[in-house]
Amino acid sequence: MNEFDLIRRYFTHSTPAAVLGVGDDAAILRPTAGHDLHVSADMLVSGRHFFADVEPEALGHKALAVNLSDMAAMGATPRWALLTLALPQLDEAWVAAFARGFFGLAAAHGVGVVGGDTTRGPLTLSVTIMGETPQGQALRRDSARSGDDIWVSGQLGLAAAALRSRLGQLPGIALPADCLRQLERPQPRVALGQQLLGIAHAALDVSDGFAADLSHILQRSHCGAEIWLDALPTHPALQPLRAQLLPCIAAGGDDYELCFTAPPERAAAVLAAAAVAGVAVSKVGRISTVPGLRLLAGDGSEVQLERLGYDHFA
Amino acid sequence: MNEFDLIRRYFTHSTPAAVLGVGDDAAILRPTAGHDLHVSADMLVSGRHFFADVEPEALGHKALAVNLSDMAAMGATPRWALLTLALPQLDEAWVAAFARGFFGLAAAHGVGVVGGDTTRGPLTLSVTIMGETPQGQALRRDSARSGDDIWVSGQLGLAAAALRSRLGQLPGIALPADCLRQLERPQPRVALGQQLLGIAHAALDVSDGFAADLSHILQRSHCGAEIWLDALPTHPALQPLRAQLLPCIAAGGDDYELCFTAPPERAAAVLAAAAVAGVAVSKVGRISTVPGLRLLAGDGSEVQLERLGYDHFA
Repeated sequence: MNEFDLIRRYFTHSTPAAVLGVGDDAAILRPTAGHDLHVSADMLVSGRHFFADVEPEALGHKALAVNLSDMAAMGATPRWALLTLALPQLDEAWVAAFARGFFGLAAAHGVGVVGGDTTRGPLTLSVTIMGETPQGQALRRDSARSGDDIWVSGQLGLAAAALRSRLGQLPGIALPADCLRQLERPQPRVALGQQLLGIAHAALDVSDGFAADLSHILQRSHCGAEIWLDALPTHPALQPLRAQLLPCIAAGGDDYELCFTAPPERAAAVLAAAAVAGVAVSKVGRISTVPGLRLLAGDGSEVQLERLGYDHFA
Repeated sequence: MNEFDLIRRYFTHSTPAAVLGVGDDAAILRPTAGHDLHVSADMLVSGRHFFADVEPEALGHKALAVNLSDMAAMGATPRWALLTLALPQLDEAWVAAFARGFFGLAAAHGVGVVGGDTTRGPLTLSVTIMGETPQGQALRRDSARSGDDIWVSGQLGLAAAALRSRLGQLPGIALPADCLRQLERPQPRVALGQQLLGIAHAALDVSDGFAADLSHILQRSHCGAEIWLDALPTHPALQPLRAQLLPCIAAGGDDYELCFTAPPERAAAVLAAAAVAGVAVSKVGRISTVPGLRLLAGDGSEVQLERLGYDHFA
């Protein structure tokens, strides 16, 4: 099997949403008139973003999921993806399982995989995702306004707890299986993002850690926020460990939930949107004109975290 | 300096061609009405696509050049790019030089770098490029027709000769400096591709080796071809070594010239297009209904090459 056989067999699926998919110098796409186009790219490196012995199907799922999550954060409908992949060797069973995970999730979201590249090298993936919103409607990081409620979807801290557990940093604690599932097979909140168009002001996805990610909204929107730490949602089984796991809940990465702001008078619309998307949402704080991020304990005292999120070069 | 400082300082340039560039979950682009969108991605791995000690500015140039070449091959106007980059360590001088090469070429082609990702890992780059053509006008690999002339731009074999020389496989041969320049700083034929819209039938860029790349056109267009080996253009200084360097000229990779087909009655239009683009073009063969690729020597005899091009998993 050579490079071209590999691409043909595992990475070439039909792409009805494209004029021309894999196989030419570039794909040919026909964007929807009256829509903006969104594009984003993420790189995943073995030993850094995933364990080298990760189940390849889970890796395929996650590689696309983290990119779909970027579309969800814009409220965009994901349409096309490209995958570049460096493989240490041509292990056909590994490639087949990886492709199942990647293309399975793509199909579930109606995403056409229209291009990419395979080469030999240290196991590394880069995924580019493209999606669309009606012109001018996207949820941006720079659109939060003073007085907005701050919301978060789903539960936080599960993926970070699973990672710490795997690294032996949570001795004596048995985590629920949902934690590992969140780490390995996150569910991008694509439907929720779309439902929030016209309701939410600012949004992003929680990838590096809730506090660090929210700080990006604050910086770009030139505002501050207070967060009620007790309101941050987590898994019921982690509730008794809330104090110990606060770094995971408030600053852990890899959950791929949405954090968004909306005016208080749209709270009912937010809850209705979440119900349509089938995702729980929690109100966890408020945008203010006071600069900076204030994390408040139940008694109103301010809490300092050692770090707010993950930095690849720290 | 952390990841965000790095992105801010070296990878965030103004992007007037985008509604929103680097800094949100995804860029916001507004494609041109009545145009098709082209997208392509390539991955470059240290030690495979480039030497680990490559001059970083040259690497930055080449990483974008090979992607611009894919747009050239479609006749597309390149508009936006994304860069994902794994770096073994944060060497600021290296990053600054790399960014000079990458963003310098982007600016020269009016390309906005609208997104990407940086992480720590074995030196690896992945670039996604996006461009546009008027709807339905793109140059595709599946559009060659029997009787078409086969053309190639510029000169072939320079980059492959430089690579072989660097690997010590051309002892006693002093190559002209143009060879190393072609290997390290290829000039994508963007203007030529655009000029060929409405004139050429099929096109692609010569990246893996002329014979292998042309074979892709033949496969997808369901036709064959004969190539006159003596007509394949190369550097004047390599002419005396033509026999020895035939594998480089006919099957060497990394030249990033365009190979295209056009009906014989458009030969004058081809030459006029090339003159406007400021690039030499050579007629090197003809598309036929006889399947397969026949490489012909000056006396009309058929030549067999040991291999037609490069395969990453061979």
